[in-house]
Amino acid sequence: MRHHKTVEFIAIGDELLIGLRSNGHLTFIGEQLARRGLRLSSAGEVPDHPDAIRRAFSEAWSRADLVLVSGGLGPTSDDLTCEVIASALGRDIEHNTGVESDIREFFKRRNRVPSANNFKQCSIIAGAEPLRNPNGTAPGQWYSDGNGRIAVLLPGPPNELNPMFLDQVLPRLESLGWVETGSKELEFRSMGIGESLVAEKLEPLLEPHKGLVQIAYCAHAGMIDVRLNAIDESFQPEQLRTLAENCRDVLGEAFLGYGQPDPAELILNRLRANGQTLATAESCTGGLLSSRFTDISGASKVFMGGLVCYRNEAKESMLDLPGCLLEQHGAVSAECAAAMATAVAERMEADFALSVTGFAGPDGGREPAGTVYIGYHSPCGIWSRKEVFPGNRAQVKERAVLAALNFMRLQLMRNEVPDMIESVK
Amino acid sequence: MRHHKTVEFIAIGDELLIGLRSNGHLTFIGEQLARRGLRLSSAGEVPDHPDAIRRAFSEAWSRADLVLVSGGLGPTSDDLTCEVIASALGRDIEHNTGVESDIREFFKRRNRVPSANNFKQCSIIAGAEPLRNPNGTAPGQWYSDGNGRIAVLLPGPPNELNPMFLDQVLPRLESLGWVETGSKELEFRSMGIGESLVAEKLEPLLEPHKGLVQIAYCAHAGMIDVRLNAIDESFQPEQLRTLAENCRDVLGEAFLGYGQPDPAELILNRLRANGQTLATAESCTGGLLSSRFTDISGASKVFMGGLVCYRNEAKESMLDLPGCLLEQHGAVSAECAAAMATAVAERMEADFALSVTGFAGPDGGREPAGTVYIGYHSPCGIWSRKEVFPGNRAQVKERAVLAALNFMRLQLMRNEVPDMIESVK
Repeated sequence: MRHHKTVEFIAIGDELLIGLRSNGHLTFIGEQLARRGLRLSSAGEVPDHPDAIRRAFSEAWSRADLVLVSGGLGPTSDDLTCEVIASALGRDIEHNTGVESDIREFFKRRNRVPSANNFKQCSIIAGAEPLRNPNGTAPGQWYSDGNGRIAVLLPGPPNELNPMFLDQVLPRLESLGWVETGSKELEFRSMGIGESLVAEKLEPLLEPHKGLVQIAYCAHAGMIDVRLNAIDESFQPEQLRTLAENCRDVLGEAFLGYGQPDPAELILNRLRANGQTLATAESCTGGLLSSRFTDISGASKVFMGGLVCYRNEAKESMLDLPGCLLEQHGAVSAECAAAMATAVAERMEADFALSVTGFAGPDGGREPAGTVYIGYHSPCGIWSRKEVFPGNRAQVKERAVLAALNFMRLQLMRNEVPDMIESVK
Repeated sequence: MRHHKTVEFIAIGDELLIGLRSNGHLTFIGEQLARRGLRLSSAGEVPDHPDAIRRAFSEAWSRADLVLVSGGLGPTSDDLTCEVIASALGRDIEHNTGVESDIREFFKRRNRVPSANNFKQCSIIAGAEPLRNPNGTAPGQWYSDGNGRIAVLLPGPPNELNPMFLDQVLPRLESLGWVETGSKELEFRSMGIGESLVAEKLEPLLEPHKGLVQIAYCAHAGMIDVRLNAIDESFQPEQLRTLAENCRDVLGEAFLGYGQPDPAELILNRLRANGQTLATAESCTGGLLSSRFTDISGASKVFMGGLVCYRNEAKESMLDLPGCLLEQHGAVSAECAAAMATAVAERMEADFALSVTGFAGPDGGREPAGTVYIGYHSPCGIWSRKEVFPGNRAQVKERAVLAALNFMRLQLMRNEVPDMIESVK
């Protein structure tokens, strides 16, 4: 196994230590590096205090090949990162004319005048290379000590850090040969079965590659993201692809797609390809299902609209559901779910309709909280399905939406468009 | 200023370093401690590897009074925390009969049989006190070295860690006098104005208390959470309350409430108190606004339902909006927003209605992407309002929903129920 470089990441900011903000940079950077075969060997959060920054940086610098630091590069007096790290490296800070002209340009484009504070940001560690920041005033910094050790300073706001990391840091690491250019990682998503069942299906496939490939699972409500990581140099990208194809085959219908596909988008894409339309009728999910569909850009080609008939009066008046049906079976029933789907398809003149009715909790009714019925109307027929979810109100809503999407996805695969599973890219 | 204890937190888990999971424990523990006057002096994430765990723990142990560790207490072979930390402390691990009977009881209640692995979890650091885990099998551990230093081991799953921290760790810290019993922290939320304007209004009030009170801001889309923290022993809870009341006064209408109030809940509570009802009509927000209202438990007392009329056909057929209005002004217009609100109020027989229509992006229409009109129908009259939001599709949706909620909140305050601002608890 090739010697991997050791990388540490330090995030600076009081807000990270008092629970005001989570360290999203760690998730972002950790994932980007892992995709390219490099793993963070540790990470840390320190407050905006010079002693804490100096200690954390010096420790990391003493043992890592690459130290990434985020935050504390702003224009105000509590932004200390540059000075403290320069001093820890035994370097001065010096004015950089390239950065100054970037900052002047930044303000000119916005018809604003820079303050004296902003020009403080023109100073960088002596010998460091500035990383341009098209989305803010603080430049990043790339410092190499000439002995193979590198420190990188990145601005705190995600809309500045993320593109700078992708466009300027990763390419430099690539040209040093510290990260893989081809992907050593492959990700796919399953839907409709739990993490333990996914693991049970996949582990036998991984057994022969022990020590060569690592697998990691991340469970969302109703979906499991699986990441395969080739941890040994000898394991080739083609082998990784073959392994992923095998995983897809054993997962069968539960395999949603490579990457992190969105089930609502898969459904809309299929319907759009056939020139078909969709409507929704919701009770307990309260609009969350239709919001999912309208999250997709271009949804209006397919999605006609939805009805949130939260109270029974609305079910009767907006969908013309017969009062006797609601009385006989209750609004939370397979019969009502099916009737809602068919009625909204008719009212909105849509080819397909998906409906959800249930008890989101904390209180139940004829059935306990968490009981949900899904209705599905399609040119091939009408189906409904019962689900019972654990969790609080928000969790039940979220799970019901995902179950409805999965139900429609499976019905489409089984009955109308069986080729929903794509091949690996 | 009293000497505060230094506290460090170490989270163990590969998934934290490859971007599969964010370190939610840090946010939780950081906030809980800060509320009680104790701040994490730093935090870190390390992989499930004995050397990494040992190094991180030993460093923290050498400089902190309290070291909190989460994760790696499970029953499988890669759960190493207990062994590694015992060895770093120079202690053995030993079987604990209390833990064993808890584990047997845990499985008995679930009609399951513990595996041999589970009994590994009966062993804890010699001299440590087990912290009972009603929600899982891994006990927490509280280890005191007899010289005023404490190490606490906590299980990784949030539903196990959180109650254990609140019910067993905090009370022990309280009885040691390491955390405040009264709150040294006060939080409130503002809505409708940006972070820099909030800061500009509040900073003069804080100036006289420099060094005694710290202020922290956390911006969400459309809302700013402000936390006041008494960092000096001499600053009393009453003074903090007075300061917060003054902040409320200068923020005026922008002050949403103490704590983290939900604007949808404030609106529903006010309407419920008057026995009034609400409906929504949405275009670009696609159901996200109605979903917000139905997130609130008991919403069905007030919220009749909503209509997602995503395509113009749906606006005409479901709301009987005249085609000529859509043609003359366009679906994204003040006129259409007002007509949608009034029409849905009539169709759903609701006293109040809130509507949103706009271009969520990436494409615009007659106006650029991000242009949104809000319509509001109430017994006092009909209003509409134009907003233009930056950001991608999801951000525009989210901001439009919050702007609609804020618009309704302000209209209610100004025109119907002027006492929406509550006094500090």
